[in-house]
Amino acid sequence: MKKTLLLALCLINLTTVMAQKKNDKTVLVIHGGAGTILKEQMTPEKEKQYTKALEESLQAGYKVLKAGGESDQAVIAAIKVMEDSPLFNAGKGAVFTHEGKNELDASIMLGKNKMAGAVAGVSTIKNPIEAAFSVMKNSSHVMMIGKGAEEFAKVQKLTLVDPSYFRTEDRWNSLQRVLEKDQEQMQLDHDGGPATTFVPFNFVDEKFGTVGAVALDKNGFLTAGTSTGGMTNKKFGRVGDSPIIGAGNYANEQVGVSGTGWGEFFIKTVAAYDVAALMAYKNYTVQQAGDEVVKKIGELGGDGGLIILDKDGKAHFPFNTAGMYRGWITESGKVTVKIYQE
Amino acid sequence: MKKTLLLALCLINLTTVMAQKKNDKTVLVIHGGAGTILKEQMTPEKEKQYTKALEESLQAGYKVLKAGGESDQAVIAAIKVMEDSPLFNAGKGAVFTHEGKNELDASIMLGKNKMAGAVAGVSTIKNPIEAAFSVMKNSSHVMMIGKGAEEFAKVQKLTLVDPSYFRTEDRWNSLQRVLEKDQEQMQLDHDGGPATTFVPFNFVDEKFGTVGAVALDKNGFLTAGTSTGGMTNKKFGRVGDSPIIGAGNYANEQVGVSGTGWGEFFIKTVAAYDVAALMAYKNYTVQQAGDEVVKKIGELGGDGGLIILDKDGKAHFPFNTAGMYRGWITESGKVTVKIYQE
Repeated sequence: MKKTLLLALCLINLTTVMAQKKNDKTVLVIHGGAGTILKEQMTPEKEKQYTKALEESLQAGYKVLKAGGESDQAVIAAIKVMEDSPLFNAGKGAVFTHEGKNELDASIMLGKNKMAGAVAGVSTIKNPIEAAFSVMKNSSHVMMIGKGAEEFAKVQKLTLVDPSYFRTEDRWNSLQRVLEKDQEQMQLDHDGGPATTFVPFNFVDEKFGTVGAVALDKNGFLTAGTSTGGMTNKKFGRVGDSPIIGAGNYANEQVGVSGTGWGEFFIKTVAAYDVAALMAYKNYTVQQAGDEVVKKIGELGGDGGLIILDKDGKAHFPFNTAGMYRGWITESGKVTVKIYQE
Repeated sequence: MKKTLLLALCLINLTTVMAQKKNDKTVLVIHGGAGTILKEQMTPEKEKQYTKALEESLQAGYKVLKAGGESDQAVIAAIKVMEDSPLFNAGKGAVFTHEGKNELDASIMLGKNKMAGAVAGVSTIKNPIEAAFSVMKNSSHVMMIGKGAEEFAKVQKLTLVDPSYFRTEDRWNSLQRVLEKDQEQMQLDHDGGPATTFVPFNFVDEKFGTVGAVALDKNGFLTAGTSTGGMTNKKFGRVGDSPIIGAGNYANEQVGVSGTGWGEFFIKTVAAYDVAALMAYKNYTVQQAGDEVVKKIGELGGDGGLIILDKDGKAHFPFNTAGMYRGWITESGKVTVKIYQE
């Protein structure tokens, strides 16, 4: 009889935990980039650093939400932690262009009213996600680029830095590796025929690292944000999907999406909005919509991943790369961080 | 009996004409901008100039298609005519930025393989649509901006011009009118309280004029292209929807779309791709999809229009402004040009 009682108690307990879990919706999802992240190539120390940074980002955003703040402020808080960390390809730690510069892009979109802001090709704004927010909030425009965007940031009294602030040795070494390979490729071109002006793709390993966040606030409103340094060795003022509303970032009343990966393919597939369209027009779940869009990206030859959060707190993290730095936090504060496929 | 025979012949004739009409699909659609274009404000001479330019654009694209050329070349030919004409806000005749410069944007997308290219914020490329095509064809990127894009155009041996090439007196006078109004607004701001850094919207009249084209070639493939000078008095490196794949331009195997209007709202609604999504996911016709998207733009507070052409040669030209310069040509060479609502 004692055993039966214990079993009964256990069952009740289990049911409670399940019920709790079911109601404990996800309120913030983040990513720190997707790419060839293999467990066998990762040191325990580096893994620890990434995990810690992702947890800090989640806690920063969660703090805003817990205090009753809105989803846009939670997204900005979460992304700023990753922009300020040298580990991610956004803000400090951004990859280098072919010319050895750091050119940053970012965007933000509010689901409740479809307000949106973006900056591209900026080199002196410490936190590009704040600049994207300012464009949205304090101008009638959605997108500003280059020197013009920097001038606007100055008028807005955002923190400006010397371009050297963004430099890290790791990223500088990445550029040198890619430039060496470029030289070899040019040699091949030269031997094989006339030199081409084709801009080659960089190595997959050097390509990714964009950061992003989607938050759901107490009013049920979603915001999505994305920030990046782009591709190592990018040339000719290349801009990827991160500052493109619909491609690397999108939010409406139903769902918020942020992307990371081979930006050109996210633009061609209008990836972030396509998730929302599949949910709105075909009643897909976050899982069905996310998987379908990543499949489309793969079919075109691209790779990367998405973080998706809907108005009911359902989240999905599809990607077709070896790994994607990602994490989420629930209403009760439960944090999960993952790096590899599982 | 003679009368009966005549009637019978007439009926046969009528049936043939109808059948001909039914099979005579549209192969090229163009627009030269939407806005407050009112018949009562238009001189017969100006109307004639616009009609002539639109007809020339259609004939240039049609010539390519008739010779068996592909839809991308037809789109480029049609758009170049409008870029080279001072009548439209693209290429020569582009509107001026706040600083008195011309900053041009363009994009192109091939439906058959989703290849895409775009340039934004360029000031020295004679035909931005050609630069967008070069980015698509001769680089691994989709979007290039500013000086970087100009450098790429130089490497690609595209025609470069002195920035003064784009200047027209009409557009210069438009800027002066807007700047005067700005001054009045600043005075109001000053009297009413602290000065604001909010970037005000310009007059509707001064805002539009983007050009675009969608072509369907003998292989059944679609290409969409869009080119613009943006908004009069735009500041801070503002970029609108024209170079944004999914917003102002999109093509897939089913449909091609080009937009013109208040760009910020086309970005927020991901307008061009939304037409394609409604057709693919909800089986909407070009008419249903186009009307729905223009309705969404209007509901958010924006205005403008779309040109849409599907793989069966069905076209639609929805807009919520007083007028939209538009035209189309059928397989048999029948040209139609329209300006106002009807």
